[in-house]
Amino acid sequence: MQARWSAVGAALRPSPIRALYALIQRPGMISFAGGLPDPAIFPVEEFAACAEALRARGTAALQYGASEGYPPLVEFLRSWLEGRLGRKPAPEELIVTAGSQQSCDLLARVLLDPGDTVVVEAPTYPGALHTLRNVGARFVPLPIDADGMLVDRLPEAVERAERATGRRPRLIYTIPDFSNPAGACLSLERRLRLVQTARALAIPILEDDPYGRLRYSGTPAPTLYALSGGAGVLYTSSFSKILAPGVRLAWTAGDPETVRRMVLLRQGVDLCPAMVSQILVAEYCCRGHLDRHLPRIVAHYAVKRDSMAQALRASLPAGMAAFAVPEGGFFFWLELLQQRARELFDAALARDVAFLPGEVFFPDPAETVGAPLSGERFARLCFTFAQADEIREGCGRLGRTRT
Amino acid sequence: MQARWSAVGAALRPSPIRALYALIQRPGMISFAGGLPDPAIFPVEEFAACAEALRARGTAALQYGASEGYPPLVEFLRSWLEGRLGRKPAPEELIVTAGSQQSCDLLARVLLDPGDTVVVEAPTYPGALHTLRNVGARFVPLPIDADGMLVDRLPEAVERAERATGRRPRLIYTIPDFSNPAGACLSLERRLRLVQTARALAIPILEDDPYGRLRYSGTPAPTLYALSGGAGVLYTSSFSKILAPGVRLAWTAGDPETVRRMVLLRQGVDLCPAMVSQILVAEYCCRGHLDRHLPRIVAHYAVKRDSMAQALRASLPAGMAAFAVPEGGFFFWLELLQQRARELFDAALARDVAFLPGEVFFPDPAETVGAPLSGERFARLCFTFAQADEIREGCGRLGRTRT
Repeated sequence: MQARWSAVGAALRPSPIRALYALIQRPGMISFAGGLPDPAIFPVEEFAACAEALRARGTAALQYGASEGYPPLVEFLRSWLEGRLGRKPAPEELIVTAGSQQSCDLLARVLLDPGDTVVVEAPTYPGALHTLRNVGARFVPLPIDADGMLVDRLPEAVERAERATGRRPRLIYTIPDFSNPAGACLSLERRLRLVQTARALAIPILEDDPYGRLRYSGTPAPTLYALSGGAGVLYTSSFSKILAPGVRLAWTAGDPETVRRMVLLRQGVDLCPAMVSQILVAEYCCRGHLDRHLPRIVAHYAVKRDSMAQALRASLPAGMAAFAVPEGGFFFWLELLQQRARELFDAALARDVAFLPGEVFFPDPAETVGAPLSGERFARLCFTFAQADEIREGCGRLGRTRT
Repeated sequence: MQARWSAVGAALRPSPIRALYALIQRPGMISFAGGLPDPAIFPVEEFAACAEALRARGTAALQYGASEGYPPLVEFLRSWLEGRLGRKPAPEELIVTAGSQQSCDLLARVLLDPGDTVVVEAPTYPGALHTLRNVGARFVPLPIDADGMLVDRLPEAVERAERATGRRPRLIYTIPDFSNPAGACLSLERRLRLVQTARALAIPILEDDPYGRLRYSGTPAPTLYALSGGAGVLYTSSFSKILAPGVRLAWTAGDPETVRRMVLLRQGVDLCPAMVSQILVAEYCCRGHLDRHLPRIVAHYAVKRDSMAQALRASLPAGMAAFAVPEGGFFFWLELLQQRARELFDAALARDVAFLPGEVFFPDPAETVGAPLSGERFARLCFTFAQADEIREGCGRLGRTRT
């Protein structure tokens, strides 16, 4: 009987990444594909010990909670974010969400009407493209280089999009620190220019910062939020990469009116994030575990990053690929100099090693306003999930695809 | 700088219920307003003991999970639902969500375009109205009596809505068992007719069943899902009322294609429900706690229901209100014979007792297709949250508003 879907429902389609994952699930495969944290570094014991809070604060853990987030967790985050945000956000400038994905979804629903456009760096995080597509958005892609988004081209891209659609883009989505997939950091100069340009154009920025605390080398730049003083920037980050994705908790800092609307919307979406999860995480953070865990994670992933850098240099034949060593985050982004990523993907699969071909990180041409960009010469390799010997062996296998 | 919102964002407004709650928050107030479970019956010890699973299955608890739900929880639910659904749903017919609110939101986004109409019983759950409003829905209200929705009037209401809007209603939303707020149960005859009529009109039904297992007297009728064999009915229920709202976990059983689209959508919404919460709840259920807890809850609330019935009969002056004793669920629904609910609300507040006036359970006239219905002569009293002495004293205060 079910035959008619909404426009949103009809446009849904399986993620091409999940189709690739299906190919990868087999014994013996070394995967650099998924952007997963290393379960070996999950603080299982410390986290499980925090479950005492489920007994001590059982009534709060099991009852409905505030749509803004569990107050002790909000309080922790306000102080903890002060360094990264350049100021301590007021309570009404913060919302705890069920993951950055939900932050993006709530914000998109509050800001975007079907057909509105969003400026994205290309390549970008496919999950954000999915979320924005779910509200009927189209995309204005800006290319990147080693220093992140080519912010210089923003005014022209906005003007072209406005001419093409009759509407100004409604949002700029960016991952300034250790972008997914390219691992690039937006330079300070470009950050300043991005904040100024966006403000002049009256386009809000969604600054997605899942990796900002995972820096292994180099010098940090202030967040866009800090540079803007909070005006015009919605800042989102998450526990997924610094603690654990399974807690499904993230936060967004923004102007009070946008946050208020996200809170109102979420009262019809999920009422509040899981209290059980919030109380465990609040306990974990307030016991000081998070601040002690972060240096451990950074050291752990720094070694893995160096391992992959070394293994790629040692294993890939000359002329096969160019890449920079990322200063943080989860990913190497290889420019393939002699072949297309999909060809390499097929050859790699035959040798039991996997990565993600670049094209999945770009909006489809059909949903792109302006000239589409192509990812067919790029490959994303995640270095955080695989173990050291797998990194060496996997890069070796990749190199042997060319022999 | 932020001045332009999406149509959804611009239409958001604070829930009138939350404004009422703000009035109620003061010492000495006895509240029958919120639809909250009694924290005294939360199984804090048993639930906290299940946190051993966070140690034993720490890696799964902390990593990303399947968008369909944590497999052991899905497996438990499939068997556990067999009685209520009349069949064991296939894995692809089930999705675990972050609360019934999310079930409704995902389904609404998959099925409804802005301007589409939804048939609702009036009065109905305001949270569902909020969720449906968030996707731009309007409402076709059907009145109720002691046996639930007046299903006889469905064809005519659909026809009128179709004439008025040019589109057939896209969904029927109903709480057949112990409805919120009216506490009514849809009679078997009406259930059969509803399933047949909806099928003939090709309109899917969202059967919201948060209270179905909380029956204190009377004879159960099969769910709409069971009567339909699953065709054309999306069945949603939740752990909120039978275990704890703070776990934020619910489930929807439906046809595989609708469930598949809900899963695809949620990959851009929150990826998966909190794994931490799912693992705790799966452990709780698989240890047999849920099946042992349910009779305790039912007995506990049955006493409270009887207390309130007795207190209302003893305390309300003759001619003040008419009501039925609900056979289950959370609520008494009083028809006020001499005054408007808002007048009683104000008088009650002056005597430190609170309830919810009926009007918040009806769609606004502006969002109603057809003749709006009014709740101004009704009052909802929740009997599950207050303690026994508060129930007696609160009903006494209510009665004294008339002296």
